[in-house]
Amino acid sequence: MSAAARPPVMSVAAVEAFLAAEFPQLRHGGRSVTVESVGPLTARLRLHVDERHLRPGGTVSGPSLFMLADVGLYVAILAQIGPVALAVTTNLNINFLRKPPPGDVIAEIRLLKLGKRLAVGEATLFADGDDAPVAHAVGTYSIPPQNTVL
Amino acid sequence: MSAAARPPVMSVAAVEAFLAAEFPQLRHGGRSVTVESVGPLTARLRLHVDERHLRPGGTVSGPSLFMLADVGLYVAILAQIGPVALAVTTNLNINFLRKPPPGDVIAEIRLLKLGKRLAVGEATLFADGDDAPVAHAVGTYSIPPQNTVL
Amino acid sequence: MSAAARPPVMSVAAVEAFLAAEFPQLRHGGRSVTVESVGPLTARLRLHVDERHLRPGGTVSGPSLFMLADVGLYVAILAQIGPVALAVTTNLNINFLRKPPPGDVIAEIRLLKLGKRLAVGEATLFADGDDAPVAHAVGTYSIPPQNTVL
Amino acid sequence: MSAAARPPVMSVAAVEAFLAAEFPQLRHGGRSVTVESVGPLTARLRLHVDERHLRPGGTVSGPSLFMLADVGLYVAILAQIGPVALAVTTNLNINFLRKPPPGDVIAEIRLLKLGKRLAVGEATLFADGDDAPVAHAVGTYSIPPQNTVL
Repeated sequence: MSAAARPPVMSVAAVEAFLAAEFPQLRHGGRSVTVESVGPLTARLRLHVDERHLRPGGTVSGPSLFMLADVGLYVAILAQIGPVALAVTTNLNINFLRKPPPGDVIAEIRLLKLGKRLAVGEATLFADGDDAPVAHAVGTYSIPPQNTVL
Repeated sequence: MSAAARPPVMSVAAVEAFLAAEFPQLRHGGRSVTVESVGPLTARLRLHVDERHLRPGGTVSGPSLFMLADVGLYVAILAQIGPVALAVTTNLNINFLRKPPPGDVIAEIRLLKLGKRLAVGEATLFADGDDAPVAHAVGTYSIPPQNTVL
Repeated sequence: MSAAARPPVMSVAAVEAFLAAEFPQLRHGGRSVTVESVGPLTARLRLHVDERHLRPGGTVSGPSLFMLADVGLYVAILAQIGPVALAVTTNLNINFLRKPPPGDVIAEIRLLKLGKRLAVGEATLFADGDDAPVAHAVGTYSIPPQNTVL
Repeated sequence: MSAAARPPVMSVAAVEAFLAAEFPQLRHGGRSVTVESVGPLTARLRLHVDERHLRPGGTVSGPSLFMLADVGLYVAILAQIGPVALAVTTNLNINFLRKPPPGDVIAEIRLLKLGKRLAVGEATLFADGDDAPVAHAVGTYSIPPQNTVL
């Protein structure tokens, strides 16, 4: 991993601008996910929880947690390799560990592999301010041949 | 599985009524998922795709497919055991196989195990009218002690 | 999937000969896995269970079931595309459903996708003669560029 | 997790003695897996690789890596709760990241949840002396009602 653990080629601002242009639905009904930081093979995102993300009982819904993990892994790959090709989710395995309270959720992302064709990473999700994870996901992304700059 | 493969104890109408009462957000912004049939350890659901479920390029988003698989597995368990306790998703593994076109998505659900504490099932997702699966998911659900009728 | 669901290009005998040459450890300590049939995107294998595969209590061990699922998925891909390139397991998700009794285990394999770069399939494992699955696995395989005949 | 992150109740020696008595096949053909340390919700194990674990080309086989991750997660749970009940693997998802060279493999285990009925943990596997993971697994274990001391 040493070769790959270089600083990301995109800044937080560049990643946010790319997401806003390419994935407008992430802000459907208002701002929802923000990128807090990117680093070598890592990223940190925040889900700004509102009623769209809640289930009865006040807990954050499974699809919202899935979306946060998936976007987070995508962001970590994007920041590292740049917008040269769109990574595509091929597999995502998520474990729901505890019911999150009805507040923001933080995703800590760590890429385990960043190859030419496949990237694999893990997302650990926390309720903001709590250190017991509410969910954990591992995802695989297919990276198309990088001959086109988007 | 022979012992468990009895007819479901809830009808489609009863399942739909239960979902409408307990998961009003499934209809957030209009009707989205409908149950087409339930059978012994099986169910079939439809995602009525509209712009909320689409990604740029016109394909159905990953979180929408995740939600359909998760709701479908939940429905198959619910129909089989009745509303005596709320099953909770503990794990879901999803493989994205092909980009679905921008139309309705069908989920065919099959439970592989329905134990006292855990249920496991698979969801195969198809674009309506096509027989090549667009996604496949396997989920595990924890079933609480069944001493309370909801 | 229609385009891919052609008859396999390798026979059972050809697959068995390939495995014997390339994976001699499958027969370490005596014959262990046999291929019973191959078909369009399908295969059926048998684990001949002996004491190497058993755990205390007489049940078949998890690693033995994992191996059977993994070999079975590999065989289904191999039979379909031929020995032009070695598929490599990138992800395998396995659910253990029931304790298998100490006898042979059958794997029914079904490929869900057979693309140029990735193949995805499921393996349902049964105790021989019983129709309740003991385990279920979904695996992803990376297919290298097919420019070399082995 | 704070409540659960207590020191383990079993020492490395106690865990090793328990495994030797309950899982004699781990030493089938000679010593294979050793526990190097246990800590609060963590463990570290070593696979002493010999020809039983190798595939052609000299890489460690998938079933051997699966077995190491599974035993490691089992050990971390066992050390934390003691031999009051046998945890049973219900799900294991493994990603193969790089081909390991033909030497020992280290498993670093971290439990993400240790509930009364379910435990979830991750195993990161490294070739001894290298810091790029060769595989990563997440497993779920069912913990039976703890009314019996084994």
